[in-house]
Amino acid sequence: VRLLLAHRDRLSLNQITTPRWNVSEAVHGCLRHNIPSIALWRHKIADAGLAESLRCVGEAGLRVTSLCRGEMFSASTAQERKALIDDNCRAVDEAAALGANALVMVVGGASPVSIVDARHMVSDGIAALVSYAHDAGVRIGLEPLHPMFAADRSVLATIDEALKIASNYPNTQVGVVLDVFHICWDHNVFEQIARASGGILEFHVSDWLVPLPDILLGRGIMGDGIIDIRSLRAAVDQAGYHGSIEVEIFNQTTWDSDPDEVVGHIAQRFEELV
Amino acid sequence: VRLLLAHRDRLSLNQITTPRWNVSEAVHGCLRHNIPSIALWRHKIADAGLAESLRCVGEAGLRVTSLCRGEMFSASTAQERKALIDDNCRAVDEAAALGANALVMVVGGASPVSIVDARHMVSDGIAALVSYAHDAGVRIGLEPLHPMFAADRSVLATIDEALKIASNYPNTQVGVVLDVFHICWDHNVFEQIARASGGILEFHVSDWLVPLPDILLGRGIMGDGIIDIRSLRAAVDQAGYHGSIEVEIFNQTTWDSDPDEVVGHIAQRFEELV
Repeated sequence: VRLLLAHRDRLSLNQITTPRWNVSEAVHGCLRHNIPSIALWRHKIADAGLAESLRCVGEAGLRVTSLCRGEMFSASTAQERKALIDDNCRAVDEAAALGANALVMVVGGASPVSIVDARHMVSDGIAALVSYAHDAGVRIGLEPLHPMFAADRSVLATIDEALKIASNYPNTQVGVVLDVFHICWDHNVFEQIARASGGILEFHVSDWLVPLPDILLGRGIMGDGIIDIRSLRAAVDQAGYHGSIEVEIFNQTTWDSDPDEVVGHIAQRFEELV
Repeated sequence: VRLLLAHRDRLSLNQITTPRWNVSEAVHGCLRHNIPSIALWRHKIADAGLAESLRCVGEAGLRVTSLCRGEMFSASTAQERKALIDDNCRAVDEAAALGANALVMVVGGASPVSIVDARHMVSDGIAALVSYAHDAGVRIGLEPLHPMFAADRSVLATIDEALKIASNYPNTQVGVVLDVFHICWDHNVFEQIARASGGILEFHVSDWLVPLPDILLGRGIMGDGIIDIRSLRAAVDQAGYHGSIEVEIFNQTTWDSDPDEVVGHIAQRFEELV
């Protein structure tokens, strides 16, 4: 069976793909390449200012898909954990102002606490944030990261684990963000995507290069690696998700390239492969 | 609850920890440090010759725990796959000659085929090897590797997945090899270890450094990272495994160090932490 391609209108540029651009430049890049949506990062919003960022996306008529990203919840002291939750409330405020589809959470890793304690801190942190986010009209998107990040970025390492936490809340408040790079290895991935039905808030694409050049900055552009992206995208569609598809490339070589060429390239690959 | 330490008699030196040593030097290193067991690698046996390797371990009275490792099963052509299975039969012969406790299998990754095809090749390859190994009196140990190796080394990325294949065979013929580095991230790890009861053939220890210096050669010595090794070891004991505990350190810095100092250091850390 030849799966249908995703409609080009679903393409969203995740701003981390073009770190040389500020918010305004990224917005204009989307316009030049007919990309209707963008995912913004908080450090870029901080550089531009929230009001200016709002003005840029508003004037361009772009939709904001994700706001990336909430602060990690695991930390050594109660004071630090409180500060992280407070900062996550500021992230909620920004997501609300931007009308973002979801606030993406990278929940924090086992270090410097322990994997068991970190899991508790994550559950507790989300519980502390949910009602604030709900009141602001912001949905919290739990993104399971690849297990190689369990030590330092996210103890949520599988869709299963993210769904276990999300299931404590209505999916109008907490859902999951699925990224092919993080989930492609899982032998239960198709069952887990089906289980996530109704709770998928965002879908991210990139590729897994062989050999992997770097743990954090080694992701590839779609088609350059081994992920069967279209099958995963079709499974996500089948689970009822018809929203935007963000291209999110953490890769030093991509980052060092001309952003305009990168965006042209990913748009073409999106049309051919996603 | 303070868990009891593992008995020093269970320590086995996995030879990959000291790649500057040949078989004879590794055997004598074990003797100097009162380590009763060793896991050998095939490329080192090939360098020394099987007869000479046998003579070394026999004279020293060491037990051979693992033979590392079988060839990967995933390959593009039927001819290559046949050649890999033939080579695995030679690995079985060596394991039989050495009286090794298990032949450890790193089964192969998604590349250059696809993750779905690779999984079939792995199932088929093991099926093709089992009766030969059984006739030779050799147990096949399926080692799930960390999911970051799913693309290029092992589509078996979880204990669950390894047990699914192992459960097709009597556990006198096929079992699992558990390595803390590969399994520590799994939120179901304790349940999965309990499920593996009766089928655990070997147990490996090292540590997960933060940040991870390298995907392949970035493992730490026990105590230098974030893994709660003793809890995992106690769970493995609880699952009925009372065999050897191999220290297997894939780490360039360790490899560049004086092997005798490395072995002294890991023996001490084993006594303190495992």
